[in-house]
Amino acid sequence: MSMSRGRGAGERLVVIGGDAAGMSAASQARRLKDPGELEIVAFERGHFTSYSACGIPYWVGGDVPDRDRLVARTPEQHRERGIDLRLRTEVTEIDLAGRRVRARDVDSGAESWTSYDRLVIATGARPIRPDMPGAGAPGVHGVQTLDDGQALLDTLARTRGRRAVVVGAGYIGVEMAEALINRGYEVTVVNRGKEPMATLDPDMGRLVHRAMEGMGITMVNDAEVTGIRTGDDGWARAVATRDAEFPADVVVLGIGVRPETELAAAAGLPLGAHGGLLTDRSMRVRGHEDVWAGGDCVEVLDLVSGQERHIALGTHANKHGQVIGTNVGGGYATFPGVVGTAVSKVCDLEIARTGLREKDARRAGLRFEAVTVESTSRAGYYPGAAPMTVKMLAELRTGRLLGVQIVGREGAGKRVDIAAVALTAGMTVDQLTSLDLGYAPPFSPVWDPVQVAARKAARAIADGAR
Amino acid sequence: MSMSRGRGAGERLVVIGGDAAGMSAASQARRLKDPGELEIVAFERGHFTSYSACGIPYWVGGDVPDRDRLVARTPEQHRERGIDLRLRTEVTEIDLAGRRVRARDVDSGAESWTSYDRLVIATGARPIRPDMPGAGAPGVHGVQTLDDGQALLDTLARTRGRRAVVVGAGYIGVEMAEALINRGYEVTVVNRGKEPMATLDPDMGRLVHRAMEGMGITMVNDAEVTGIRTGDDGWARAVATRDAEFPADVVVLGIGVRPETELAAAAGLPLGAHGGLLTDRSMRVRGHEDVWAGGDCVEVLDLVSGQERHIALGTHANKHGQVIGTNVGGGYATFPGVVGTAVSKVCDLEIARTGLREKDARRAGLRFEAVTVESTSRAGYYPGAAPMTVKMLAELRTGRLLGVQIVGREGAGKRVDIAAVALTAGMTVDQLTSLDLGYAPPFSPVWDPVQVAARKAARAIADGAR
Repeated sequence: MSMSRGRGAGERLVVIGGDAAGMSAASQARRLKDPGELEIVAFERGHFTSYSACGIPYWVGGDVPDRDRLVARTPEQHRERGIDLRLRTEVTEIDLAGRRVRARDVDSGAESWTSYDRLVIATGARPIRPDMPGAGAPGVHGVQTLDDGQALLDTLARTRGRRAVVVGAGYIGVEMAEALINRGYEVTVVNRGKEPMATLDPDMGRLVHRAMEGMGITMVNDAEVTGIRTGDDGWARAVATRDAEFPADVVVLGIGVRPETELAAAAGLPLGAHGGLLTDRSMRVRGHEDVWAGGDCVEVLDLVSGQERHIALGTHANKHGQVIGTNVGGGYATFPGVVGTAVSKVCDLEIARTGLREKDARRAGLRFEAVTVESTSRAGYYPGAAPMTVKMLAELRTGRLLGVQIVGREGAGKRVDIAAVALTAGMTVDQLTSLDLGYAPPFSPVWDPVQVAARKAARAIADGAR
Repeated sequence: MSMSRGRGAGERLVVIGGDAAGMSAASQARRLKDPGELEIVAFERGHFTSYSACGIPYWVGGDVPDRDRLVARTPEQHRERGIDLRLRTEVTEIDLAGRRVRARDVDSGAESWTSYDRLVIATGARPIRPDMPGAGAPGVHGVQTLDDGQALLDTLARTRGRRAVVVGAGYIGVEMAEALINRGYEVTVVNRGKEPMATLDPDMGRLVHRAMEGMGITMVNDAEVTGIRTGDDGWARAVATRDAEFPADVVVLGIGVRPETELAAAAGLPLGAHGGLLTDRSMRVRGHEDVWAGGDCVEVLDLVSGQERHIALGTHANKHGQVIGTNVGGGYATFPGVVGTAVSKVCDLEIARTGLREKDARRAGLRFEAVTVESTSRAGYYPGAAPMTVKMLAELRTGRLLGVQIVGREGAGKRVDIAAVALTAGMTVDQLTSLDLGYAPPFSPVWDPVQVAARKAARAIADGAR
């Protein structure tokens, strides 16, 4: 085992993980400090850097023609900017006392220590793989990495246009259902929950359920997968639940991710209730002056509930990286937290949410009114005006906005941003009713659907106060 | 002249003007008080109530198949809800001391006084009609009322698919250009300003200019119209400017509106610098306990500049009506003001703005940084990702967001709502950079275009502070 240290007068930044958070941090630090001041070494165990995992369903579905489009910046581009990027190199140990990390060359198995002055942990998340018979069989695919996507595409080429079963009905599950529909598969979605999209309240999930059935997707709820049946050739042939078996030529696992923090845990770094690293607002790991963490491996503060959550989302990872890079580069930036905004689509169905669901609000000790309204994306008389359902939660007494969920068609999803900004500002639903939002018949009814919901919520709060 | 008073124990509300503000006020008051408590008399000089003037370009252009679609609530529907609606009846005098209004039957000329306990003035706006030769000729059309729209459609039927000249390049002008393109006309837009869309800064107006030329529209800027040339039959034949003449089979005037406040002025009610009625936050006319005003005839407080503006927009009129109706119905509501949000489109070009332009900021005594960025509506690799340009103004020292202008294609316009809510909340551009906005590849890049602009603006403010 060699020990790499040899450096000049400057400091060394070591980054573990070459995707959004890690490489954003590295790039931003490089922008602020030149190589003479700050040497930057980044370790990535895979083949790729800075790619959009969120784009994988659209590559698999054929909307994005090839893998390279998903790569925002290649290893070569990072190296050209003065980042010492080591691909296929896995960090196996963090030695906090010695301020060094041990890394292993994935191909050769050779190991070496690299010292650091500052460390960025951006190890991401790993997909939850159910511990059940057949889960590792060929024909069973996760969709977390570009390698996963390529393997799935290879299987699809082998089983063209047959039966696909998606396990899980969260964002990844529903997006993969769309991808497989687009590839001509008969798609069944098997879901443990009462309704798809557990990030919504069940009444809103029910709307997604019906819309997906309307697209010809078979939706199986309340169903725990017990195993994957394989054929004589060892390939997956069916997904089994307690009550039934669903024939499958290909199985896609979309059952969420967990923070990848084994390395951090082994080093004794602080983890939260969801298994993610705990940081302060500058994205520094709590209690560790020179260690920073961001992206899918950390927990984030939910500004509405005041509690930590784990949210694996590229947009947060990029922001974390930007903040970390600014701070390790000698500047000052913070990540104040999230309000839990997410948007997704299944074919022409748009699904969005921000803030708290009913059960989140209860868990946070908040009492609320919940209202639901039907409106349209454009003036009712304008062509293409599509129905949309908006659910809104507001706190009793204060009338503070707590959350919004939207299910609709074109023009529905991004409306959640109105609520996301209002949540961040701590607005009341009454304040929402008088917001000056963009109005013209091709864009909105005179009262934006979010404001229609806010009016109803404000009335419910006022009635409740009597 | 008769004197109508005869009423029961209740009070009487008189509403002048039967469109959005007036009838929203009447409807909301009726919801809160039944006819025994509050008699409601509404005067409307035209044939219609509660219609969407904003929808007229889409009716003329053929996207909306018939006029009735633009009517949100008919006179019969208002009467069924217990509102004594008097169509084709023009109020000719307000007697504040006597608490009565004089109204004239437009057809018979008969006049009568009606007393009130509370008065709502919702007289709207009137189009600016240039004082020049030929402005009143047949073939020259405004597009303010449903009657105007019908008259224009009659002319179009007579001059099918020929040359149309639109005078004015504001919202109405550019929307009418689209309508006439859709009807198969060769369209020329003649505009007094340096660039179209004077509600944008000229650098952003320039983008609209180029895009409209790309649609085959002839754009003539810096051109004051001096007259309309007519043929032997008296019909409009050309639009003349100092330098040129533009042949026209039909001429559409889209040069803005002024508050219709002659009646209010004659009664001695307070008007602002823009000719609109001045109200308090409850939409009560300043200094007049029982007189309320809303919609296109009032001035509104711009929350960013702290100054009054006149903005004729259906969404404000509806909100004013809702507030007035709540207050005259015995409840409590306020209209806090506007941030100046507007969105429009010309074919597939989307144009939006909120807050202050450079010249507004200067006029308000504010110093600022202005930045412009190019981004895309979706992840760059996702099909249909369309370029969009975002300009952002931020105040020096404080970094407070002052305004946003957007020119782009599908998915660009409604993004202005993010900035509209942030302006209302008084956020800084730095705060914008960490907003938790809806992200998924079909909806947005990982950094929303508004946040890309905010990052650049925040850097400019920070650099300026050094």
